[in-house]
Amino acid sequence: MTTPDARRTEATLDRSSTHGGGTAVEVVTIGDELLLGFTIDTNAAHLARTLAGIGVQIVRRTTVGDAASEIARAVEQALDRTGAVITTGGLGPTSDDLTKQSIATIFGRAMTIDAEHLAWMEERWQKRFGRPLPAPNRHQAMVPEGAIKLQNNHGSAPGIWLEDDRGRWVAMLPGVPREMRGMLADTLLPRLVARIDSGLVVQSRTLRTVGIAESLLAAQIEAMPGGPLDGSLAYLPSIAGVDLRLTVRDLPADEARRQLDEGERRLRECVGTSIYGEDDTDLAAIVLDLCRAKELTIGVAESCTGGLLGARLTAIPGSSDVVQGGVIAYANEVKQNLLGVEQSLIEAHGAVSEEVVRAMAAGARRVAKARVGIAITGVAGPGGGTADKPVGTVWIGVDIDGEVVARMFRLWGDRDEIRQRSAQWAMEMLRQRLI
Amino acid sequence: MTTPDARRTEATLDRSSTHGGGTAVEVVTIGDELLLGFTIDTNAAHLARTLAGIGVQIVRRTTVGDAASEIARAVEQALDRTGAVITTGGLGPTSDDLTKQSIATIFGRAMTIDAEHLAWMEERWQKRFGRPLPAPNRHQAMVPEGAIKLQNNHGSAPGIWLEDDRGRWVAMLPGVPREMRGMLADTLLPRLVARIDSGLVVQSRTLRTVGIAESLLAAQIEAMPGGPLDGSLAYLPSIAGVDLRLTVRDLPADEARRQLDEGERRLRECVGTSIYGEDDTDLAAIVLDLCRAKELTIGVAESCTGGLLGARLTAIPGSSDVVQGGVIAYANEVKQNLLGVEQSLIEAHGAVSEEVVRAMAAGARRVAKARVGIAITGVAGPGGGTADKPVGTVWIGVDIDGEVVARMFRLWGDRDEIRQRSAQWAMEMLRQRLI
Repeated sequence: MTTPDARRTEATLDRSSTHGGGTAVEVVTIGDELLLGFTIDTNAAHLARTLAGIGVQIVRRTTVGDAASEIARAVEQALDRTGAVITTGGLGPTSDDLTKQSIATIFGRAMTIDAEHLAWMEERWQKRFGRPLPAPNRHQAMVPEGAIKLQNNHGSAPGIWLEDDRGRWVAMLPGVPREMRGMLADTLLPRLVARIDSGLVVQSRTLRTVGIAESLLAAQIEAMPGGPLDGSLAYLPSIAGVDLRLTVRDLPADEARRQLDEGERRLRECVGTSIYGEDDTDLAAIVLDLCRAKELTIGVAESCTGGLLGARLTAIPGSSDVVQGGVIAYANEVKQNLLGVEQSLIEAHGAVSEEVVRAMAAGARRVAKARVGIAITGVAGPGGGTADKPVGTVWIGVDIDGEVVARMFRLWGDRDEIRQRSAQWAMEMLRQRLI
Repeated sequence: MTTPDARRTEATLDRSSTHGGGTAVEVVTIGDELLLGFTIDTNAAHLARTLAGIGVQIVRRTTVGDAASEIARAVEQALDRTGAVITTGGLGPTSDDLTKQSIATIFGRAMTIDAEHLAWMEERWQKRFGRPLPAPNRHQAMVPEGAIKLQNNHGSAPGIWLEDDRGRWVAMLPGVPREMRGMLADTLLPRLVARIDSGLVVQSRTLRTVGIAESLLAAQIEAMPGGPLDGSLAYLPSIAGVDLRLTVRDLPADEARRQLDEGERRLRECVGTSIYGEDDTDLAAIVLDLCRAKELTIGVAESCTGGLLGARLTAIPGSSDVVQGGVIAYANEVKQNLLGVEQSLIEAHGAVSEEVVRAMAAGARRVAKARVGIAITGVAGPGGGTADKPVGTVWIGVDIDGEVVARMFRLWGDRDEIRQRSAQWAMEMLRQRLI
């Protein structure tokens, strides 16, 4: 459904063509698994974001299966359009003929064995697996004549750079994401930087907000004094909150950074404390840092989230100096026996109530011998809702040194979303009390 | 790195061309966000898997940005190759001109207003948002002359079916995954089925295994009496275990089902109880069903997983009749105070030890008043490892009615993977005792 908020989001997205002043490349991703839909193509997104940082823009992406004729046709068409193509996939030991050979054919090159690489592979195989290199793997050492190898520090198939006398090139990367990312960073990126050196980049910065509706955020930002921001601003709502992504294009690197710094400063001034971090920052890490600075320890008491809040907090390395532990109080009996919630309280107000969440928060603090107790009790669905307390009704309580703040939420989404939003809100309630 | 196991996997993947006997279509996904890498394209995979079920195969996928000329060029090229194209994206209120109009141009059609759809939108907007339809949204009611609308039950932008007198067609779907999936199922799929009716399908079935190494699995299956299976078998390792996906192609629906049934029977006979479910089945749901059948309730005691096992179990709707709750015993103090683990035990053997995990499992059972206690204690890393107990060392204990089985694992991966594998193994240890 397109709500007014979603409309506003789209309207503020940048709709200019992706052809900027930067260098244009096309990407061809190769693999039956991709076409059949059994593998989601994450390489393409990683390539796009990484290349944008050096001013290279992907203007088209094509996915074909593992058939030599399809690969050759797609790469040839892409070369005709842009003269610059990056492929991923088809370099493995069983399928390596396909990508390398079909592209060699386009360039009119024969395949030759790379003795150095073959020797390296033979040694490596012997060392790792204690047996000689299997015959099919020898193909990995075959390269098109005149090709430049792109070193693979994370696997055994080398990447290939092939270029004709008109300067048209194809860079072939492996399809395994870890190998692709490593080769891109180690080898291809420096080569492209040296080659293009336009000096112009596309850069983004993301500010993460939580606890504020997208529509309200947009209204505040649109009314910001000093007029619109340089660059384009996208609103990206998710279960974690709404991310604000500011993108500037086709600028020298320091000017891009200056504009992003200035944009960030204005956004922070306008949006305030709803911004909790940048880029991929996890709210859990922010909350742990705040606690650490104030020497606070945390105990949790989770009913409908069943351990999710604890799992989110302890997912952060080094969380053990803050998180003591807590209780998964899924059954009312456990709320009573472990957290000391009075049975009469549950009977009088129900397990999803302010009274019970307050008692749970205090209990969490006590049993974990922590200074902070966080409690969650709610109706995650799909069953269990009533007219009074429909699915999505969640009480969250945060007890710091004995002072409890409790709040009711009406969360939307399916069971998983309600549970995730609950954990996120619980952390946000604590954060708001600590900043 | 390509290990011998990975090689075996690739070798058993089907390498035939994706052009089978089915109908070939191309997919064009439209959006700057996709090209820039800020959105991962999940629509394409969903389309591929759904279409395969009716014998329609995607033979190429192209992604272009939100520029009219790029859209028109990509769709026109795709039409020239296959005569059958599905697009996603570019139907929203701000960008709707681009997809519909650029494709109308290819077909030489003008745009006209669809009065019926406009009236529907006006009414809907008034009702939902209490104000008149904004002018930009009127564009959503514009359609190419001679187009057939594809109804959108999940949003306001209709899809479009456009066909020329040579039978070449383009189906335009929205880019929002929920709307795209709904429209595909409700409208486009029945239309395609009626149109092609080849009677031939591509069908897959996935059997999920846990607790058995991919190499061992492959060795067993290769040695299976009765020779290779009909269809192609892919080994898909993940944190949850190794999935076995059997795919048969270009067969009438009942023959496809017969071959899959037979393949499943043989695989189950060969692999045995390591198979815990089919397709998207969650091991947590299987374990809960087994407990329910035996009237067993569960209590958990989690150290390094910090609540992840509880979260996995309680993610399943209706889990409350089995899961009582438990303790997140991240700090040793909590292990002692809540679970009754003797301090001397921790001092003598360390928190990651058989003795402590046994005491934790018994404690979990006792405090949750449950018949089953599951305990996990380990070194998830990145810090905390020793020569004796390196990162990845995890003890898991399962106590059923007072009888404890404990086992040590050396798990690999990063912190997140080690924690997830721990939770998965804990459930698998319980499953093995219940079947």
